[in-house]
Amino acid sequence: MSSSSAIADRRAQLDVGAVLAAVDTVLGSASRPVALHEPRLGAREREFVLDCIDTNWVSSAGKYVSRFEQMVAAATGARHAIAIVNGTAALHAALLLEGVQANDEVILPAITFVATANAVSHAGAIPHIVDSSWDTLGLDPAALDAHLEEISVRRNGDLFNKLTGRRIRAVVPVHIFGHPVDMTPLLAVAAKYGLVVVEDATESLGSTWQGQACGTFGHSAVLSFNGNKIITTGGGGMILTDDDAHATRARHFTTTAKKSHAWSFDHDEVGYNYRLPNINAALGCGQMERLSAMVEAKRELAGRYLAVFDGFANASIYREPNGAQSNYWLNTLVLDREYAGERDRLLSALHANGVHARPLWTPMHVLPMYRNCPRSRLPVAEDMYARCVNLPSSPFLAASEQTTTIKN
Amino acid sequence: MSSSSAIADRRAQLDVGAVLAAVDTVLGSASRPVALHEPRLGAREREFVLDCIDTNWVSSAGKYVSRFEQMVAAATGARHAIAIVNGTAALHAALLLEGVQANDEVILPAITFVATANAVSHAGAIPHIVDSSWDTLGLDPAALDAHLEEISVRRNGDLFNKLTGRRIRAVVPVHIFGHPVDMTPLLAVAAKYGLVVVEDATESLGSTWQGQACGTFGHSAVLSFNGNKIITTGGGGMILTDDDAHATRARHFTTTAKKSHAWSFDHDEVGYNYRLPNINAALGCGQMERLSAMVEAKRELAGRYLAVFDGFANASIYREPNGAQSNYWLNTLVLDREYAGERDRLLSALHANGVHARPLWTPMHVLPMYRNCPRSRLPVAEDMYARCVNLPSSPFLAASEQTTTIKN
Repeated sequence: MSSSSAIADRRAQLDVGAVLAAVDTVLGSASRPVALHEPRLGAREREFVLDCIDTNWVSSAGKYVSRFEQMVAAATGARHAIAIVNGTAALHAALLLEGVQANDEVILPAITFVATANAVSHAGAIPHIVDSSWDTLGLDPAALDAHLEEISVRRNGDLFNKLTGRRIRAVVPVHIFGHPVDMTPLLAVAAKYGLVVVEDATESLGSTWQGQACGTFGHSAVLSFNGNKIITTGGGGMILTDDDAHATRARHFTTTAKKSHAWSFDHDEVGYNYRLPNINAALGCGQMERLSAMVEAKRELAGRYLAVFDGFANASIYREPNGAQSNYWLNTLVLDREYAGERDRLLSALHANGVHARPLWTPMHVLPMYRNCPRSRLPVAEDMYARCVNLPSSPFLAASEQTTTIKN
Repeated sequence: MSSSSAIADRRAQLDVGAVLAAVDTVLGSASRPVALHEPRLGAREREFVLDCIDTNWVSSAGKYVSRFEQMVAAATGARHAIAIVNGTAALHAALLLEGVQANDEVILPAITFVATANAVSHAGAIPHIVDSSWDTLGLDPAALDAHLEEISVRRNGDLFNKLTGRRIRAVVPVHIFGHPVDMTPLLAVAAKYGLVVVEDATESLGSTWQGQACGTFGHSAVLSFNGNKIITTGGGGMILTDDDAHATRARHFTTTAKKSHAWSFDHDEVGYNYRLPNINAALGCGQMERLSAMVEAKRELAGRYLAVFDGFANASIYREPNGAQSNYWLNTLVLDREYAGERDRLLSALHANGVHARPLWTPMHVLPMYRNCPRSRLPVAEDMYARCVNLPSSPFLAASEQTTTIKN
């Protein structure tokens, strides 16, 4: 099943045909091309959205926004959930609410969707890029500790980057593809250096770590309900926090900071127009009713990928970290080290075969606008980027789900 | 019908009862409380939104976004329309796209919704507040000219504020309540001083000035489709421009600046996640089909307000400017000068009577975060704020529309 010859430039030749065959085994009869991730919508989403239209409540006032917030709070165990227009806006607002100021630095991993770094930029701050761990695919607490030990200094209760002179205010662990970051050591490192933790849980709704939901470890966290996420509101996001005062302030700040009054339009600070419309929240209410089923279906799909690639010679499927229950938002094929140079040939073959796979996002420090950002050494991030390929992960690709599609 | 006695503090006493009676005549049998403005949604909105759900296309990809853009472009005559997540985001992006930089000043009227000033702040720039005109309720070109003559200087092709040393980059005329700003002199003043014009047409879709649509006079313009606007997408906005290259760049900049590729996630600048979701655009497509009918209904309602208050002793309804065809987004009762002190007593009485009227937005220079912004003298803005009251303006309050509601 595996290729045997190493070629001249030390690049081993991947048995692409074997990978295609294995992927085809998992995807079964799904019609080609197979998207990387598609939402699943049904009767309840129709019902709630039509209720919005029929009652003329489609905008920022309306019962579904509160209901959606309550459903997400209940599902995660977060004390407060504030619905936001999208995940980028949620992280932007969350950072500002945590006191991130212009010219601060905010720590984030190299391997993440660009929105994580963009939200930092939108807040006027500078991404400070730190290496990831193969244990979780997310920020590496040990690498963070070693890096901060080397480049930072505490002064008057704040942490400063000795190389740039800028304050380092916060750290944003991202639970990549639904796999939780190793939060106990991450929180310990953050506490050691006095950094605020804002979890980027945009990919990890439904994931838990040590039995606790992703999005409930940091002082605040953000979710995303973009169309490619585990549940969708078209576009949408959320801020989670257990801090009552913080939640009150977040709600005010993201609704133009308008003071409540029967008729006056008074605002007491520069706020944002970041509220999620009611019609999008209505979709979210329908989606939340199926969250458990979606996670179950996605875990079942992951189980099939894991089984088919078990003992595979050139590559393996990434398995959830110890102690984690992952939503397996995106399944990840990891090429063995000697096949790192074969990633793009594999991607071409998969696409030619109607399988919309993709590599990891281009690492943040490689993008032109973030090339000069402060950073740690990034050997793991670069290795991950060279060797990982995401495979189609729509929940309805799971066998038992395929048979129930018509019920919706 | 009018009160006759002037009281001690030179405040004439408004005949509130007469105003209530006149408003009640217009509102007729509409059930109380009557909101200031409610959307109207029907069969086509249901159809398009359900199509999104049934085809699994609710997010940022999908046919309704393009269709909605084409419908708005066709209705306004703008060459390009780029759908955005809301009006504030549209203005924020439009200002950045026009080259507004941190610490620039941007001219806007004191009388506008706070989002106009907030979008300037979000761009890192400083609102520079200029007086309005009773002729249009919008920015006064003559006041702008006189003010710039006094405080500005041209240097190396840019305009600078002599008092602050900052560059003045752009002017944002806002077509208040749908009434077009006097655009010929405004454009002439902007050209004289080298200012870019970005129209805030968030309230004026369907309005024309000299036969040309609001939103097509500036180098770019923005629309809003918030729930209280003439058409709604729940939340939504749009950038209009006739400039091909500008439109291409706007589209890229508002979709995370992602480079097109079958699988790579590469981005070439710090872009925004500002795209309108497909499900919101689907609502918009339904709404655009009724735009003409909405404008007609609103003009009919305005006609009834004008008729009922014709010859009224203490106040009058604001009439569209000469040369304009207004959408009459919000109808405005203007108290005669001697009754300026009676506004809040009138508002209390209207609310007590189930009529959700409101004053103008608190002027920008009165809000705490904009109190210290550069500004011209603002006598007209302050006079307007003291004397104007917006009355319920939902299109279905028009008599002929009330009878057709059930068709939808």
